[in-house]
Amino acid sequence: MRGIPDRADTRNPATHRADTFGPNGKNQPLAKQRATRSVGCDGRAGELSCRSQKLMLQAGLIHPASPGCYHYLPPTVRAMEKLIRVMDEEMQAVGGQKVNMPSLSSAELWHASGRWNKMGTELFRLEDRHGKEYCLGPTHEEAVTELVAAHSNLSYKQLPLRLYQITRKFRDEPKPRFGLLRSREFYMKDMYTFDTSEEAARQTYKLVCDAYCSLFDRLGLPFVKVQAATGNIGGTMSHEFQLPADVGEDRLVLCPDGHFAANVEMLNGERTSCPTCGEKLIQTRGIEVGHTFYLGTKYSSISNAVFCSPENKPQLAEMGCYGLGVTRILAASIEVLSTEDNIRWPSLITPYQLCFIPPKRGSKEEEEGAALLDRLYNDLAEVLPHLAGDSVLDDRTQLTIGKRLKDANKLGYPYVIVAGKRVCEDPSVFEVWNQNAGEVLFLTKEGVIELLSKAQVP
Amino acid sequence: MRGIPDRADTRNPATHRADTFGPNGKNQPLAKQRATRSVGCDGRAGELSCRSQKLMLQAGLIHPASPGCYHYLPPTVRAMEKLIRVMDEEMQAVGGQKVNMPSLSSAELWHASGRWNKMGTELFRLEDRHGKEYCLGPTHEEAVTELVAAHSNLSYKQLPLRLYQITRKFRDEPKPRFGLLRSREFYMKDMYTFDTSEEAARQTYKLVCDAYCSLFDRLGLPFVKVQAATGNIGGTMSHEFQLPADVGEDRLVLCPDGHFAANVEMLNGERTSCPTCGEKLIQTRGIEVGHTFYLGTKYSSISNAVFCSPENKPQLAEMGCYGLGVTRILAASIEVLSTEDNIRWPSLITPYQLCFIPPKRGSKEEEEGAALLDRLYNDLAEVLPHLAGDSVLDDRTQLTIGKRLKDANKLGYPYVIVAGKRVCEDPSVFEVWNQNAGEVLFLTKEGVIELLSKAQVP
Ligand SMILES: [Zn+2]
Ligand SMILES: [Zn+2]
Repeated sequence: MRGIPDRADTRNPATHRADTFGPNGKNQPLAKQRATRSVGCDGRAGELSCRSQKLMLQAGLIHPASPGCYHYLPPTVRAMEKLIRVMDEEMQAVGGQKVNMPSLSSAELWHASGRWNKMGTELFRLEDRHGKEYCLGPTHEEAVTELVAAHSNLSYKQLPLRLYQITRKFRDEPKPRFGLLRSREFYMKDMYTFDTSEEAARQTYKLVCDAYCSLFDRLGLPFVKVQAATGNIGGTMSHEFQLPADVGEDRLVLCPDGHFAANVEMLNGERTSCPTCGEKLIQTRGIEVGHTFYLGTKYSSISNAVFCSPENKPQLAEMGCYGLGVTRILAASIEVLSTEDNIRWPSLITPYQLCFIPPKRGSKEEEEGAALLDRLYNDLAEVLPHLAGDSVLDDRTQLTIGKRLKDANKLGYPYVIVAGKRVCEDPSVFEVWNQNAGEVLFLTKEGVIELLSKAQVP
Repeated sequence: MRGIPDRADTRNPATHRADTFGPNGKNQPLAKQRATRSVGCDGRAGELSCRSQKLMLQAGLIHPASPGCYHYLPPTVRAMEKLIRVMDEEMQAVGGQKVNMPSLSSAELWHASGRWNKMGTELFRLEDRHGKEYCLGPTHEEAVTELVAAHSNLSYKQLPLRLYQITRKFRDEPKPRFGLLRSREFYMKDMYTFDTSEEAARQTYKLVCDAYCSLFDRLGLPFVKVQAATGNIGGTMSHEFQLPADVGEDRLVLCPDGHFAANVEMLNGERTSCPTCGEKLIQTRGIEVGHTFYLGTKYSSISNAVFCSPENKPQLAEMGCYGLGVTRILAASIEVLSTEDNIRWPSLITPYQLCFIPPKRGSKEEEEGAALLDRLYNDLAEVLPHLAGDSVLDDRTQLTIGKRLKDANKLGYPYVIVAGKRVCEDPSVFEVWNQNAGEVLFLTKEGVIELLSKAQVP
């Protein structure tokens, strides 16, 4: 882990000791230095802008590159890859096929849909060496519709078609802020669906919304699904998935009994009571983490994306599009789950499940304790290899156990296993901190393995 | 699979039946239509430019978007994700930590290294809404060095530092061509290493080169490692990993006994005999799939990327950088392994391992054969779940088995399992085509499972 005094010992390659490039060592005032840079880079005087940004910078999860653009450091990449795996599962469970579309998107496409002008300064625009114009895709309705339209002999039997990608997107935000919550480069999961009829498209819409609910449930994130405005994407029906949070940029109104939930943006005028039960609506703020649109034939009619009907006639596909902010979900999770000082992740996507803390250098447990912890790790690796590969060894043994435990708590490892005072008892006893439960257990090696086997570690 | 007449049956969700969006059905003249588009898009009159491009377009693996930019369709995304997994293993085995750096790279960084001008028209350049200049990163020496320089209290104990990413890169090629072999958007694995001394950096260099050899060995790709010019990346030592192929754009000279291998680009004048044994050098062409550079302090001195030496003095890090073309390796593999008509993949990264072919509609085996194949699939899913998730069911039962077998051969599934004439015998006998060995076996259900358990399917 950080501040590693010696990297010679690589007996356990699966244990990530080498996150020298992750969390900043406390013996090294990097956090301060980083915070300063971040302030400079984001052009904000004074303090950092929100909890997740502050925590992610301090913990070495992200590092600013230019306004609204961040380097994702190793723990963030791990969390992101885990999140992507969950998204893949959910999308493939609803018949999603994964594709990958270029970032460079030709101006012609956007002129045809009218969005080249409509998107204004939010589009990053550029010319190639031949003077041909492109934008960097913030979303891919035009591109995917062209792709499907090019398959001109598509039969109704081949629909529904549900294509998705998880790629980097670009948006020239007027004020990039809040770290990964509103950045200019970000990762998004975007799905585009093609159906034979409005009815079929509405079924698809429901199916994908349910998949989104399942995803947020699995992550253990409290969310609300609200009616939303369609904006410049267009279409006739739209919902947002919002995580309630003070820092959220959207204002929401919710019926306390769940009859009604909307982004105030989409309401004509003010609404203070539920249209169903008349109860006073609750006002809250939310971070938008997902957005769904029923598009109808808006894009398919532009590109002539047709399929061959049972009557053998060309017919426009009914479309939907569906976005999930990948990097935004990472930051929003930290925003809503963490305390002011301590990061908490959804356990499904935590960068590491386990942290091992060997005894302090020079303590009387030093040698035996380190060896016993090593043996525990090896036995664990045999029984639960996946978990072993998801571990960090904090071998900054110049620091006390207490100091390292505090850091582990800040970084939010779900389980911290300490070779403390009782490790030299017979049989040895390890301290196991379950951070989410906020409890400590004293367990033998077998006890630790049993606990972790039973724990719902993904 | 393609041309699916009926998608109602989703009993086996793990079986990918739904690649309606992959290979074009032969009953649908998509290949022709695509080829035409490709010609238009790539601005080349006449035929397609190389085997891999032709095969990948025909098989529905890629679809042109704009010159040198392709949509990657579902089988390609599967192959790419498998390849990325292998790269992750190899990079992590040499202590690589995975990061992810922005595509937008500020002009200031490139001015500081002198490459803003040196790179000329190959850089895609753009301005944001405030008129600030950026390029789209083709490579990230400047960015990563800044990142490391920002961690100003790095100790010698924390080195070597080996950071890598696998992300989309951009290069405004004068003539994008050969499909994914030379495109303007592509995926690259790039690693950057930081060491305390030249000696340590040379050890790192050797280690990463060995990892590259291991990768190509595991993929079963014949490669040569040749001395190379350092170009505008700079540095004092460089090697390329080349796959010998006629379509390759690099000219190589090789000693038949392996003493010497070089890209002719890096030679001063012509060399016809081996400097060690004097033998006549073999001339060949190659596709560059990897490139390594020993950089010294070229970039660290610009950004002041220092570490704290044992004497507690700041000292410039010795750097190396190492690239592997991800999408290029996919195309190059197809280029060198395929026949003119039939795609062959390295088995480690083939999009799907298995293809199941049920009986033709209306045949006397139709019902029983389909049910028996289903049962085989289910049993396989229990014993080899990973393999079951790597399967395609070709249920275009309106086509003969022979026709579908021919298509399966074109697409290069390593194993094709057919419920043919002998499926109704007692016990049932399946035809198993091992495409790489070019042989067919007649096996019972148990025999099939045993064969696949033993086969080195990844
Ligand atoms: Zn109500
Ligand atoms: Zn020789």
